Amino acid sequence: MNGNTGNLFARIPTQLPDELVQTLVTAPSFRVERIVSRGHASPTGFWYDQPEHEWVLLVSGAARVRFEDDAQAVEMKPGDYLHIPARRRHRVEWTAPGVQTVWLAIHYG
Amino acid sequence: MNGNTGNLFARIPTQLPDELVQTLVTAPSFRVERIVSRGHASPTGFWYDQPEHEWVLLVSGAARVRFEDDAQAVEMKPGDYLHIPARRRHRVEWTAPGVQTVWLAIHYG
Repeated sequence: MNGNTGNLFARIPTQLPDELVQTLVTAPSFRVERIVSRGHASPTGFWYDQPEHEWVLLVSGAARVRFEDDAQAVEMKPGDYLHIPARRRHRVEWTAPGVQTVWLAIHYG
Repeated sequence: MNGNTGNLFARIPTQLPDELVQTLVTAPSFRVERIVSRGHASPTGFWYDQPEHEWVLLVSGAARVRFEDDAQAVEMKPGDYLHIPARRRHRVEWTAPGVQTVWLAIHYG
């Protein structure tokens, strides 16, 4: 496989002290990232507040995402996708421990 | 789930006379589609010749993609992604029969 092909489950380090974030596609108006979590969550009290929209797909694993304006968290399982508008504050409350949670994220706009 | 969330494996009709193609995200410069194949392949002798670039991820199932300028087909399994530059002629030679092959395709540029 060359630089234009690959597999979302390949080349994941054994140790992941932090989430792994890698850009797969860059274009002037958007970028696509692979994110790998293994039990990671956003720090307590931390909220993402992004200038761009994000469309995120959970490819494997499991996660729970919270929006600040919604008391109910969003449980995510494989195949689930979620649109996060710019400036909608959110955090990753939980990802499954001991397994890889692989996300595909598209940032745009 | 509302219009901004969903699952890539949900709402697939029992009968699929043709491939199912649905737009999940539309922005001025790109669009994201879910494509579901169940044994579908491009018609014999047909080549896609697209004015836009395509980045495609095989989420489930299996497929074989051929580029006209490459005698060797690309075997795709879950997690595999492939970049198809604009105007690079290609066809889907085979998708696994009897199971769903779910793709995520980003068209841009």
